[in-house]
Amino acid sequence: MDDILHNETINTLLNHRSIRSFENSPISGEQIQTIIQAAQSASSSSFIQAYSIIGVKDPEKKRLLAEYAGNQPYVAENGHFLVFCADMHRHVLAAEIENLDPELIRPSLESTEKFLVSVVDATLAAQNAAAAAESMGFGICYIGGIRNQLDKVMELLSCPPYVLPLFGMAIGVPSKSSDQKPRLPFNHVYHEDTYQPDDNQLKEDLKKYNQTISGYYKDRTSGKRKDRWTEQMMTLLERRSRMTMRHLIQQQGFMKDESNE
Amino acid sequence: MDDILHNETINTLLNHRSIRSFENSPISGEQIQTIIQAAQSASSSSFIQAYSIIGVKDPEKKRLLAEYAGNQPYVAENGHFLVFCADMHRHVLAAEIENLDPELIRPSLESTEKFLVSVVDATLAAQNAAAAAESMGFGICYIGGIRNQLDKVMELLSCPPYVLPLFGMAIGVPSKSSDQKPRLPFNHVYHEDTYQPDDNQLKEDLKKYNQTISGYYKDRTSGKRKDRWTEQMMTLLERRSRMTMRHLIQQQGFMKDESNE
Repeated sequence: MDDILHNETINTLLNHRSIRSFENSPISGEQIQTIIQAAQSASSSSFIQAYSIIGVKDPEKKRLLAEYAGNQPYVAENGHFLVFCADMHRHVLAAEIENLDPELIRPSLESTEKFLVSVVDATLAAQNAAAAAESMGFGICYIGGIRNQLDKVMELLSCPPYVLPLFGMAIGVPSKSSDQKPRLPFNHVYHEDTYQPDDNQLKEDLKKYNQTISGYYKDRTSGKRKDRWTEQMMTLLERRSRMTMRHLIQQQGFMKDESNE
Repeated sequence: MDDILHNETINTLLNHRSIRSFENSPISGEQIQTIIQAAQSASSSSFIQAYSIIGVKDPEKKRLLAEYAGNQPYVAENGHFLVFCADMHRHVLAAEIENLDPELIRPSLESTEKFLVSVVDATLAAQNAAAAAESMGFGICYIGGIRNQLDKVMELLSCPPYVLPLFGMAIGVPSKSSDQKPRLPFNHVYHEDTYQPDDNQLKEDLKKYNQTISGYYKDRTSGKRKDRWTEQMMTLLERRSRMTMRHLIQQQGFMKDESNE
């Protein structure tokens, strides 16, 4: 039983931590190819494969991406940088190949459902890429920060309509390790047969978790920091960040079905 | 080099195929716990952990889910069934714990950006669960079909506001193997430094891919089927499916920022 529960893949997954400092050594073309193949092996809704991956090598583009993402140096300094995009552009080209009036597919193409499908497809691929890279000994960090100035990112990467960058991923040889932050309690995230109906129980879980997280910070800062998780979340959520996202998504052609009702 | 590129984790990822027929043998509690732990180990945007997983064991609930998903028998007949949900409900409870006026976080909580974050968080977790389960020798199948009648699914699982089921996952011991469909060509999905600007090149890729997919079906049906991928995609996209998705997402409290502009 033990060896079933602790195989190499599961150890790789359980051992994940975000790495924000990389050695100055590039990832080989062969390694990139394997990482992308692993990404492509993930499931895709109705085989629609509604995503693309842009690998950014050009140092000046990486420098600009780092700036757009809020001056995160590890966006520029890493072994390789990937941008995962929702992509229905090739489905428009598919209509041309099939000599089909694109108007016939537009309501579906531009629906919220298909945007959701694209985001899920891109994210399944990304997490396979992450696991593959980590199994090779690389570290990774997801970069949601590219959504801070997504219009500039789209211009930099020449994204056509129906292509929307969702997040980046820095990959490389870790130069500094990092700790793994304790996750929410198992029973709080995992429900059985019904969503846990008792809000008081859920709040108890969160209060216990606050102690865990406070302890985590205290241990690592000689008591200087002792943030509660719920406190961190309120700081995060009081900030109205990336409030133009809906507009940018629709500008690229996605999620335009609201006017059809 | 070879052993770096072909370790156990990468082999597990590359070997993925959707399994739609399972032995009648349940997954142990210990195994479920490991699968969920692997899911929880995935990255989360700003540590927001905006998802929950509902494991469905009750046979009657599984039967209903199978019906709602369009009579897919493997939704009911498997080792275990998981439903991955975008979840910001606990963040509302966190506001109560912090004695914060929930109105202060509502614009952010209900933004398209935070919905995107929840979907990405839930999907990263799901793909880790898939890889963990497959590494144990189980097969899996994602079930987007639960979105066919999502209102009924939400009622069945008693989802409170700010909880939206996104997709299911059937897990179990495979009773029938299946083939792996060839993915889009590497150079079509993976772009370098800029999104491939040449639509003619992209169309050439798709035409070559059509031949690959036609060949795949021909080989498996003694020539009876020879669908092109672009043809399949047009059949899929001409159908207007799940066009109420935006409404259901907003009904649960997500993505309501359009009226704030």
